[in-house]
Amino acid sequence: MSILKAVITAAAPDQKQLPLQSLVDQQGKTKTALQLIADEAVAAGVEEIAVIICPGEQENYLKAAGEHASRLTFIAQDNPRGYGDALLRAQRFVGDDRFLHLVSDHVYLSQHPRGYAGQLIDIANAENCAVSTVQPTRENLLPFFGTVGATRIANRKKLYEIKCVMEKPTPTQAEQYLIVAGLRASHYLCLSGMHILPPTIMTLLEKEMQTAKPDSNLALSPALEELAKSERYLATEVDGGRYNIGVQYGLLKAQVALALSGKDRDEILTELLNLVAESKPTARHTPSSGA
Amino acid sequence: MSILKAVITAAAPDQKQLPLQSLVDQQGKTKTALQLIADEAVAAGVEEIAVIICPGEQENYLKAAGEHASRLTFIAQDNPRGYGDALLRAQRFVGDDRFLHLVSDHVYLSQHPRGYAGQLIDIANAENCAVSTVQPTRENLLPFFGTVGATRIANRKKLYEIKCVMEKPTPTQAEQYLIVAGLRASHYLCLSGMHILPPTIMTLLEKEMQTAKPDSNLALSPALEELAKSERYLATEVDGGRYNIGVQYGLLKAQVALALSGKDRDEILTELLNLVAESKPTARHTPSSGA
Repeated sequence: MSILKAVITAAAPDQKQLPLQSLVDQQGKTKTALQLIADEAVAAGVEEIAVIICPGEQENYLKAAGEHASRLTFIAQDNPRGYGDALLRAQRFVGDDRFLHLVSDHVYLSQHPRGYAGQLIDIANAENCAVSTVQPTRENLLPFFGTVGATRIANRKKLYEIKCVMEKPTPTQAEQYLIVAGLRASHYLCLSGMHILPPTIMTLLEKEMQTAKPDSNLALSPALEELAKSERYLATEVDGGRYNIGVQYGLLKAQVALALSGKDRDEILTELLNLVAESKPTARHTPSSGA
Repeated sequence: MSILKAVITAAAPDQKQLPLQSLVDQQGKTKTALQLIADEAVAAGVEEIAVIICPGEQENYLKAAGEHASRLTFIAQDNPRGYGDALLRAQRFVGDDRFLHLVSDHVYLSQHPRGYAGQLIDIANAENCAVSTVQPTRENLLPFFGTVGATRIANRKKLYEIKCVMEKPTPTQAEQYLIVAGLRASHYLCLSGMHILPPTIMTLLEKEMQTAKPDSNLALSPALEELAKSERYLATEVDGGRYNIGVQYGLLKAQVALALSGKDRDEILTELLNLVAESKPTARHTPSSGA
């Protein structure tokens, strides 16, 4: 019943450099983002990882994978048709097994002994069903996330049964379909990019692909919505945070969070204070020729 | 007399990913380190840039160069024999011209309207000779830097005439040969990785190469030392800072310094405080399998 396979989607053409970016982990070791993401999966018990990539990136990613290289299977997404299509490319790799799905533009950080992915896997094993991690998120951030409508599971902290999934809902849609009792006002449960999915998700994506217009892009949320309709599908908040390294200053925030929770915390606090003290509020010189 | 050519050395095999790392510049634009370094040169008036690279990296660097791609000439350092050898590969590109030399593992930041490189070029033009930028550096950091022995130029602030150049001197060597009057106690003038060099540096490197043992590595410092003996060669402190992105947390420090001196200063100060407030001092979870 343990989860031994993971699928990392890394095929968005505008984000293909992200897994190659360099970060220092909590132990002070310099790693690529790809290594950190694979660390997270491997620490949770995963043994094999499929990485869906842009054609031509395999060599760069293989070098960036470090000690995880031998666990990785690369699947190039030629003729790409979106996120759902990217995940569907792992159908053969997944076979009949449940799998951990992570996105390549997020770094996770948890002080929990099982880590972010480990907590998710433990819940999926205990509940024996699909589970996605969610984070209560303010209404103003809905344009950036997939969001779930869900009901709380009685007597269970931070565990929800998903009723529907909407990609980047409007405030009106959110108010109508996505309010979850007991969350802070104006907060919704947004997907945080980590899932335990059953192999049936591939069947749902295939069906979606067959009915989609030719050349249209396939999202993941509609298949997750179908999953919620056809089988038990939970959402959970786990202890920890996720850092989207694909947004402006995302790498900076992830690095600061990693460093402040790791062995070099004191050194980094001192360095940050020094940098603040040395900095000047306005930039008179702007050596940009790209403006 | 203006400096129109620059040479960036980026061929150290353990650092070849550095120019591809992503940073947000002072204007809030996400760029690669290579773009930032090229920005610095181009803002100072440089028109053509040679980049000495590891064989096989040209395609990655070309993509990472953004709007500077058309200015770049890539020279692969096959059978590499060190830093001096890397620079020597630009001999034909340089021809009979003085040139700006920058290293690819440093990012520069200056509030001066001419920028870090612009200040250096202005001094080289006014003095009509070779000039390297230096930073007063504490004795304990000497193992990391090339260091110069120099005399102050009368009535000129922060301008020195270089008498000798030593790579990573010992404290004893530093005390004997490298003390510069008027610096703070235990401080020495260390090279900060930016130079205006005459074409004669190539002749000196060639001579060094001819007398070197086969397969030995060629440093740059001995050629700079020869330069100081054969013609007028100055050192200058310019307004600004350099950030070595090749060391642990170097990217973090460069990014914080850039952000705190740019248009997003207030947002980043707030984010840093939030991250400090949210962080916890000890890491119980260590998702590292590479330990």
